[in-house]
Amino acid sequence: MREVALVGAGMTRFTKQADVGHEALAVTAASAAVEDAGVPLAEVGAAFAASMGGGPAIAQRALRHLGLAGIPMVNVENACASSSTALVEAVAWIRAGMCDVALAMGVEIVSVQSGPLDVPDTGSGQWVFDTGLNLPAWYGLKASRHMAEHGLTREELAAVAVKSRRLSVDNPLAHFRSPVTVEEVLGSATVADPLTLFQCCPKTDGASAVVVCSADYAAARGLDPVWIRGLALVSGRPVFRDRPDAEDATRRSARLAYEQAGVDPADVDVAECHDAFTIGEVLATEALGFCPLGDGGAWIAAGATSPGGKGPVMNPSGGMLSRGHPIAASGLAQTAEVMWQLRGRCGTRQVDGARMGVVHTMGASEFELDANACVVQVLEQGRQQ
Amino acid sequence: MREVALVGAGMTRFTKQADVGHEALAVTAASAAVEDAGVPLAEVGAAFAASMGGGPAIAQRALRHLGLAGIPMVNVENACASSSTALVEAVAWIRAGMCDVALAMGVEIVSVQSGPLDVPDTGSGQWVFDTGLNLPAWYGLKASRHMAEHGLTREELAAVAVKSRRLSVDNPLAHFRSPVTVEEVLGSATVADPLTLFQCCPKTDGASAVVVCSADYAAARGLDPVWIRGLALVSGRPVFRDRPDAEDATRRSARLAYEQAGVDPADVDVAECHDAFTIGEVLATEALGFCPLGDGGAWIAAGATSPGGKGPVMNPSGGMLSRGHPIAASGLAQTAEVMWQLRGRCGTRQVDGARMGVVHTMGASEFELDANACVVQVLEQGRQQ
Repeated sequence: MREVALVGAGMTRFTKQADVGHEALAVTAASAAVEDAGVPLAEVGAAFAASMGGGPAIAQRALRHLGLAGIPMVNVENACASSSTALVEAVAWIRAGMCDVALAMGVEIVSVQSGPLDVPDTGSGQWVFDTGLNLPAWYGLKASRHMAEHGLTREELAAVAVKSRRLSVDNPLAHFRSPVTVEEVLGSATVADPLTLFQCCPKTDGASAVVVCSADYAAARGLDPVWIRGLALVSGRPVFRDRPDAEDATRRSARLAYEQAGVDPADVDVAECHDAFTIGEVLATEALGFCPLGDGGAWIAAGATSPGGKGPVMNPSGGMLSRGHPIAASGLAQTAEVMWQLRGRCGTRQVDGARMGVVHTMGASEFELDANACVVQVLEQGRQQ
Repeated sequence: MREVALVGAGMTRFTKQADVGHEALAVTAASAAVEDAGVPLAEVGAAFAASMGGGPAIAQRALRHLGLAGIPMVNVENACASSSTALVEAVAWIRAGMCDVALAMGVEIVSVQSGPLDVPDTGSGQWVFDTGLNLPAWYGLKASRHMAEHGLTREELAAVAVKSRRLSVDNPLAHFRSPVTVEEVLGSATVADPLTLFQCCPKTDGASAVVVCSADYAAARGLDPVWIRGLALVSGRPVFRDRPDAEDATRRSARLAYEQAGVDPADVDVAECHDAFTIGEVLATEALGFCPLGDGGAWIAAGATSPGGKGPVMNPSGGMLSRGHPIAASGLAQTAEVMWQLRGRCGTRQVDGARMGVVHTMGASEFELDANACVVQVLEQGRQQ
């Protein structure tokens, strides 16, 4: 299988900016990624794009403004893991020898959307709205279960948000740039008990993009590679029929990605995980193998995943909670952050000596599955190899 | 690059059946394809699905009813070429060694949709609605141009619809099962002059699916392969900036697919092309290299692409004009038809001795591009090899 490298990343600021529009946001991210890679635009051999709400043909509509047209383009969707899925497709094409260089991107405008997903016909997902078991409620139940089974506390949950905001102060692209206290987090409005407002990602607009290429291309062009050592995409399983454990999709995709990479969780220096809600980071920290099952809350609250802690630094960008979560743009923003960390470019939020990184993106489901898709990436700094 | 084989195909009847719903239609097609392949469901390693209007996560939502969950699933979109794009992604994964067996499918309900595409923000595509230059009008202009430049006649255009309806009489899965005359075609209401109602595809609902696998897997399981010898996907170019020739996307993708396959148009026995409007078949017959530029209308009217003619038989299923055109389901219905023809399974519409086939799917654009995507497949019967 051909080795594939990340060689460029770009993203817009993540903030409320609906008036900019999907196409312009995507162009900003894509052109930044191509420039960062140092790849001639004419050598981009294929493009893969994702947007849940940006309308059809987002790749073609956006990239023509950049002067990129005529090449193979594919639009993908996998809920919150949509742009991570775009990356998987780009890697598949390169591995298959169908191109040498590919662009993957995601874009979303969330701040002006309202109401539930519009799911046509046959009532799939209708039970979610009938019961009120939407995603915040679902994650609220996960948090309540963790409290009951493992003794997770409200203060530990709040500590996730506090860490997130502390880190995002140093991220000029983040939605939130100011710190919060445990008291402020717990004192904010209840969204789905025990989750309060500051424990839920904001409604953010933005775009992200990466350029990937074959190892041969990277070597020939003298590019600075970040290697994709592991990359696994799985879909979820029916919660009422198969009754998978609640973090089944994360556990399965992580196992596959670690196996491909030949690494253990202990080898990881930095990670971005799917923290759309604080409990999500607790569960991902456990399911990605960074701490024992049940210990996630205490682990995070004790600073193990903060800079200088004993675990990998988790969500140095501020994550979805503070950088923001423009749905189809989130996955590649995570990849961009880990890539920049591995290249040592993150300024005041740089994780010292980061060489191995993990990205975890969950495409949650409202369709009786534990997930629509979960993607885990294992990335390694390529210099001195 | 690993050789990839089609080993199973399935589709629903194409007709008005909106009440069945996207998920049930997709399940019918997917289960038929898996059964046709003779592959254990548990060995399907990944799934790729397409639907323009079926809502998010159509792969996951539909396939769980079939008992297929947990594996990698990706949803793709590329306008009318959406399910052909799903096939491209399935092939990419197999070539990359990311799975050995994959399912690709498409599903669409068109008969209850109304109004134009809902394209959010920034006005992309708005000019189409402001000017009235939607797809029927666009194809009407292509027809007028062909008349002016090459002498295409209204009767020749009508002959495409007559051929289509004559063939679909023998296709039990087709939307229309009764023949029409040139007089009836020309006497039907004008949609976009010179195109009349019977020269435009109907509003049809349905689903289609195929199973593909590696050559090694096919051999190990003793499956009956139809080889994918050529497979090319290109996107279009801006009509106002690059001013590509009107069939540029077809010509470029066909050239790539023929090169990969090492075949000439003269080697082709049977083809399905994108005949959403009669002029589409005229232009595709030329751009796919089956007749000289400008001769398509006369060629078809003279019976060259009818059974027993000197060219490849074009659209033996009845094509989009008569089998119907449920957008994201059309591409793989074309693939299914050519696959069945190459296997000699088409009963009264069987093309004698068909060994080499072509599929051409155009994802037309309303965004200032000559196409969103165009996919050309070159398929070869695998027995006695």
